[in-house]
Amino acid sequence: MTKRIAIDMDDVLADTTAKILQVSNQILGTSYTRADLATPAKAAEFYQQYYPIRDFLHEKGFFRDLPVFDDAIDVVKRLQAEYEIFIVSAATEFPNSLTEKLEWLEEHFPFIGWSHTVFCGHKYMIKADYLIDDHEKNLVKFEGKGLLFDAPHNYHVQGYQRVFSWKEIDGLLLGKKEEV
Amino acid sequence: MTKRIAIDMDDVLADTTAKILQVSNQILGTSYTRADLATPAKAAEFYQQYYPIRDFLHEKGFFRDLPVFDDAIDVVKRLQAEYEIFIVSAATEFPNSLTEKLEWLEEHFPFIGWSHTVFCGHKYMIKADYLIDDHEKNLVKFEGKGLLFDAPHNYHVQGYQRVFSWKEIDGLLLGKKEEV
Repeated sequence: MTKRIAIDMDDVLADTTAKILQVSNQILGTSYTRADLATPAKAAEFYQQYYPIRDFLHEKGFFRDLPVFDDAIDVVKRLQAEYEIFIVSAATEFPNSLTEKLEWLEEHFPFIGWSHTVFCGHKYMIKADYLIDDHEKNLVKFEGKGLLFDAPHNYHVQGYQRVFSWKEIDGLLLGKKEEV
Repeated sequence: MTKRIAIDMDDVLADTTAKILQVSNQILGTSYTRADLATPAKAAEFYQQYYPIRDFLHEKGFFRDLPVFDDAIDVVKRLQAEYEIFIVSAATEFPNSLTEKLEWLEEHFPFIGWSHTVFCGHKYMIKADYLIDDHEKNLVKFEGKGLLFDAPHNYHVQGYQRVFSWKEIDGLLLGKKEEV
């Protein structure tokens, strides 16, 4: 039977952190980089300033033009030949994001389609063999195999197989180099 | 362990058919009623005229003001005290509907919340003990117990426990009058 992979959007397919940094720096007049977020002290400094202004996530347009991670389109397309792919995004918290996320997927991942797109809050009621996600809260109650997509905000999370790129996922799930 | 119920929106919580009839009659200059749709010949006559014009489902506003079925709010609220409730709507086919459906739920079912709201295409990857739905296509691959919510477009569907109202669901899932 075809195995099923649930794939998160933000900070897994889309480089949401890049846009968060860009908008935050603009508002705050700062120049934080992704590398800064990998340093605990710098990251704490950034997030302290970011939390009070993070309402911009709710603003129209924020999710529509997020950059796509390297190799994501190619690898997801090839995964689809061997697995059933669902895109599962915790998006119902951000009403404005819903249509934008559909448009973004249609632009970059048109081979997925609305039938395999899921917008939700919790993800633990999704039945899949794999979940690729950057948030521990989504992986912790997931009953399949969780793959933690590396992100600045999850460097402290342990207990999951961490993946650093779509090339690595390619090797793991298609390369048959090792058992995932 | 708390059992989980997935509940569809259109023609289960919301009387979508009422609005479809209203808009269709307006466009077509007809006066079809819900009773007509229960008559195979009349229903066929209606749907033949409805399919070519059903693009209005994609128009902004269609899903925002659907009427709520009798007793739905009350019964779902009481179900929530004994079950984990997810609202699961096949809504990603209708991009405009997403925000409207969130707003509609917030207006009529504010006790559900975004964390328990799911918009998807297929529903068979939802893990739940019960699915209350009006479409056979959603029930057929569902692995829990399906309850078919009676609707004019499903009168021919057999093989599922059919429920006719939220009062009846109340009796079945809360009344302990009989085993579901």
